[in-house]
Parts: sequence; structure tokens; C-alpha cells
Amino acid sequence: MIYLDNSATTRPYQEVLATYQEVASKIWGNPSSLHQLGTQASRLLAASRRQIAELLGKKEEEIFFTSGGTEGDNWVLKGVAFEKAQFGKHIIVSDIEHPAIKEAALWLKKQGFELDLAPVDKQGFIDLVALADLIRPDTILVSVMAVNNELGSIQPIQAISDLLADKPTISFHVDAVQAVSKIPTQTYLTDRVDFASFSSHKFHGLRGLGFVYIKSGKKITPLLHGGGQEVGKRATTENLAAIAATAKALRISLEKMEDFRHKTSQMKSVLQEGLAAYPDVTIFSGQDQFAPHILTFGLKGVRGEVLVHAFENYEIYISTTSACSSKAGKPAGTLIAMGVPAKLATTAVRISLDLENDMSQIEQFLTTFKIIYQQTKKVR
Amino acid sequence: MIYLDNSATTRPYQEVLATYQEVASKIWGNPSSLHQLGTQASRLLAASRRQIAELLGKKEEEIFFTSGGTEGDNWVLKGVAFEKAQFGKHIIVSDIEHPAIKEAALWLKKQGFELDLAPVDKQGFIDLVALADLIRPDTILVSVMAVNNELGSIQPIQAISDLLADKPTISFHVDAVQAVSKIPTQTYLTDRVDFASFSSHKFHGLRGLGFVYIKSGKKITPLLHGGGQEVGKRATTENLAAIAATAKALRISLEKMEDFRHKTSQMKSVLQEGLAAYPDVTIFSGQDQFAPHILTFGLKGVRGEVLVHAFENYEIYISTTSACSSKAGKPAGTLIAMGVPAKLATTAVRISLDLENDMSQIEQFLTTFKIIYQQTKKVR
Repeated sequence: MIYLDNSATTRPYQEVLATYQEVASKIWGNPSSLHQLGTQASRLLAASRRQIAELLGKKEEEIFFTSGGTEGDNWVLKGVAFEKAQFGKHIIVSDIEHPAIKEAALWLKKQGFELDLAPVDKQGFIDLVALADLIRPDTILVSVMAVNNELGSIQPIQAISDLLADKPTISFHVDAVQAVSKIPTQTYLTDRVDFASFSSHKFHGLRGLGFVYIKSGKKITPLLHGGGQEVGKRATTENLAAIAATAKALRISLEKMEDFRHKTSQMKSVLQEGLAAYPDVTIFSGQDQFAPHILTFGLKGVRGEVLVHAFENYEIYISTTSACSSKAGKPAGTLIAMGVPAKLATTAVRISLDLENDMSQIEQFLTTFKIIYQQTKKVR
Repeated sequence: MIYLDNSATTRPYQEVLATYQEVASKIWGNPSSLHQLGTQASRLLAASRRQIAELLGKKEEEIFFTSGGTEGDNWVLKGVAFEKAQFGKHIIVSDIEHPAIKEAALWLKKQGFELDLAPVDKQGFIDLVALADLIRPDTILVSVMAVNNELGSIQPIQAISDLLADKPTISFHVDAVQAVSKIPTQTYLTDRVDFASFSSHKFHGLRGLGFVYIKSGKKITPLLHGGGQEVGKRATTENLAAIAATAKALRISLEKMEDFRHKTSQMKSVLQEGLAAYPDVTIFSGQDQFAPHILTFGLKGVRGEVLVHAFENYEIYISTTSACSSKAGKPAGTLIAMGVPAKLATTAVRISLDLENDMSQIEQFLTTFKIIYQQTKKVR
């Protein structure tokens, strides 16, 4: 099997699973319990939080655990909106955000907030001039993802940070789910960023665990009210085993980042060159300012899911741009926002690479594509 | 070590951890992925959902996975409130609900909903007459827990179901977190119940996983918007390994329920009799209409946390009524709601038993208590 769908989910590292097992079977006390089992759990919780904070160059009191990227995105959007509603009700999110942001923002709109979607250019990058024009005195929140999940475009978080530098009343959120351990941390976790959300299973950690960076002093209404965990910001008994496992996954992934970037860039180049040779192929992802591991392309006249299933016959696993919306059969929202015609957008498939892939797999992918290209010629 | 804090959290079963490990390492595809790895994951997801539904006598399309009891409680409270706000804004929750319900309800109050707390009697049971009096034409939701976490009182869910029988516009939610596999399912999951929330780690499952029963046809606004998982009701990549493990934990726990009830009842009786012999002991939990495994008591003049730490010295682990609020140092809200004076309420500690405990541990507990009773005599 050749797994080229690493933006959908990654295989958990064996070391990460071992940590989970170790903690879940040995340190299973409730961190809120006053007795020794609780204290032991609570110490490991603090150590895991500290490790994650240090790995990201932040303070431990700025890291809050969640159940994943979707909860993090929903929490920041809704939590900031409800927290700051008295000061303003205008929210801006980019037009290419993950549904966890976009749908949460649309729901807030129904609750009386005002929403603007910041447009992107034809390459899939947020239009900075248009974004600046959307900002109003009552704007309370701007949310832009660091790496687009459907295309791999790296959004200009530093430039947006500069734009917001003299607007301290606007909270700036970055969805870092597809960015962490793929592009350098400082490029998306700038000093101006107030909130950032992360998901463990995207960096060989575990499902059901994520965290949110909240800059010291920034206020947010909880999404999960209750027993006062996470300094009252996010209630629920802490998923300690998955938290400790996530700290380990993050450490390993960040240690491997340079290798990851080098190796996936090379594989992506070969793919890009190989696919560009076919006249009926459209390549949507670029190279500069794009994540090194994501390549989205389409084959004229062949719907994305048809191509996914064609590769599946050869045990090669790719995706129709986003796992989250693939079952809905919708064309990739990012491509539509870029102005790609709907018919062409429905052909899009995403290859997302990992350090676990190698060049022989890429060659096998290209060999297989050649066969599929011939097979589909008659229907094109 | 003698662990008598099973209402805070339970030790995960070895079989449950094995299932987690097996699924997380072998079936790690994203259930939303269109390819074979996704299909395989999506089949196991459906099978786990079916198993849980069957174990509870419900339909598989009525089970929705969450990150735990707190998310379930918050989701139902807020999701029903926002869903039905156009029809009415009045909510009733009992005065002894878990903070996940009470704090969520108080937040809704700040958002313009009207909240009434249904009072309880001196034994810790909801006052049915008072509850009936609180119901108004604009009441949209009643939320009452099945088993109180601080005292063990079993709330009259069937009687409340009868009360609400001719009021179909009121949604009825039951927090079943402390009830499942401890008392018979049909006693709290009546036909009238529209929503019920569950937490895996309370029945030897895993942290970070829960589920909500939503009766067919009942509408609820998502708390987590996004990628359309869980039929659009709760987005996020499914935590498949924990879901499969939870299905197993539920099966085992329910299979053991009769044994559990028999054995914990016997241990509770011995504890009750043993503790009642001391003049300075107040026993708050009763026997009839109380969960078989929870016994809350206090030692005059000795704060709960002091007693917890005294037992800790003997490696006996109990709790100050609720893990979730124990670190806040607040007296048990349930006892205050029952009219117990604050000074007496601060003495309360909770013993919560499990099938993994045995009578020799109970004897050791009582022997230790005798020592602690003598030691604390001078300070009383």
C-alpha cells in the first residue's frame, strides 16, 4: 500500500502509541482528584503542557487542550465572538478556511454577528489589500489558516500580523492544523497571533486530541463549561494519556521537520514534473509559498472521486482535496474561491506526502497514473 | 493501594486498552476518506455505534460520539437552547446537576435564556411538585441527572417522564454519566427521554470519549460545526480507536452490572453500618433509591480534604464528593442544595465503589477510619 493522504490523517508513531498505553494503564487517576493518583496525573499533565509550550516557543499557561482541531477552531471563533460581542460583532475569516472555521462563522452570522469572507487570489493566497479593506472599527476577530488543507498554499501570516499590528482590539486566530511540523513554527506563530489551533492526528499523534495556543491575557468564553479544568477555560476530565502521547508526537515531528521538508519537496518536484508532462492534467498547487508535501491536481473530464478509486485499485491512497468534505461530494471550496470553474474544480485530487513515503512510491504513483491516463482517455 | 474513587474515574479494562491499541495501530484511516482505509475505518465506526445502540436498546442512528460527558452535557443544553430559541427561552435544570450542566445553563442565562433550578428535598431527590410548578408554556428543556455524582441519589426519571408525557414541546435531557452500568438502563433511558449523555471513562472505558443519545427526529444545533461528520450534528475526525474501545467497555460493564450491583451493595451496607457506629459521623447517602456504589459521609469538624489526605497516608483513595470541583475547595453543591449547613457540607467525602473492590478492602478502610477517628478526636 502507498499512503499519500497524510493531510487527512497520519499513522500514529509506535512510540506515541506506547506512551498512550503506558499512561492509560498506569497513570489513570483523574488529575482533579486530591489524592496521590490525582497528583501523579496532574504532574504529568503539567509536564506535557510545558513540553508542548517549549516546542512552540510559548509559555505553558498559554496551551489549552481540546478534543481536536475542529473543537479548537469552533472554540476560538465562538468563544472570542461571545466574549467580545459587547465591543463589536464583525468577524472576518478567509474564504478558504476549513469547514470547522467557515461553518462556525456562518453559525455566528445566524446569531447576529456580521461576517465577511476575505477573498483569495487565483493562486490561493489571501488578498491582503482586500482584507485590509474589510477591517472595520467593530471588527473583533480575523481568522486565517496557516496552510490551506486543500491546496497547500501558505498564507501570509506575517504580513497579516503587520497589517493588524496597530489594531490591538482585533483578535487574530490562525488555524495551524496543517502547518505544524510542516513549515517553520515562527512563520505562522508570530507575536501578533492571539490564538492558534492544532490537531494531534495530523502529526502522527492521536485522534481526539488537540490544543489551542491562547496568548497570555487574551480572554475567551469557554465552549465547554463545567468542572473548572484548564483554568476554567475548558472543562472535562483531561485525556491525559492522549495528551502525553501528543507531546511526544510533537517532539518527534518537529525534530524530523527539516528532513520532512527536504524529502517531501523532492518527491513533490518529481510528481509535479511527472504530472505536468500530461496535456490533460491541471496542477493547482505551486511550489514557492506552498507546503512542501501537498500537491493538488486534476485530470480533465475525470471527477476527483473516480481518480481516487482508480488509484485505490492499485492500493494507492489519495484524496479528493479534503477528507472532511469528500463524502459530501462537493468540489473543493478553495478552488472555487480561487475562481477555478466548478467543472474543473470537481476533477481535483490531493496528494499529501510524509517522511514515511519514498521516491520509489512516487515512481509507482507516476507509473500507475500513466495507466489510468490511458484508461480514461476514451472518456475524456 | 485501595481505590475507592470510581466515580471520579475508573481504571480502563485491559481488553479495552488492547482494542484501542489494535485499532489505533491498524485501522488508522480517516473514516471520511473515500479510499479503502477510510471505508475500513468507517465500517468499524458503524459497527461500534450499532453495538452501543443495541446495548442501550436504541437505534444506531440515535448515538452520536463526543469527547466526553462534559461535551455531551454542554452540547445538549446549548444545542437545544439555540435550536428552539424561537419557540421559547425557558430552561429548567435540577439544582444538583453536575457543573457541566449547571455552568452551561448559567452561561445560557447570560445569553438571554431564562433559567430555573428545580429544588431537591433533604434526601437529595428532585421535588416533583416544585418541578411541575416551574414548567411554563415557553419551557423548552428540562435537564435532570440520573444518578447524582456527589451523593448517589437516583433521580425519579420515570416520574419526570410521566410529568412530561403530555408536554411534547419540552425536550427532556438526562445526564446518565454516573448511571450507566450502575443502575438498570430502562430506569433512566425511558421512552420519554429525548437526549442522554454518557462518558466512557466512568465505565472502565477511555478518557476523551463519550456519546449522546438523541431520539430520532429530535433537532439540535451542533456545538462543533465543520466537516459534516455524525450526520452533520458533530464535526471532527472520529476518534475511532477510542470509540471501538468504548463499545467494548460498555459491553463488559453491562454484562457485569448485576454482579456490580450485588457486590457494591454489600460493601456499601458494611461501610454504612461501620461508619454509623461513630457518633461524630454523618452519613448523607441513603440506601433505597441510591446508587449501590456511592456513599457520602462526613466527620464532624474535619474538612473533607483533610480526611482525603488522612486516608491517602494509608494508600486509600477517596474524594471530596466530586473530582471536578474538588480543587476549587467548594463544599458539595448537592449537599448545599439539600439544605445541609455549609459547615457540615464541607466535611463531606465520597466513597465510590467498583467490582474491582472487595470486602477485605472495606474492612481495611474501616480499620483505618477507626485510627483516623481517634487521631482527629482532639481537633473535634
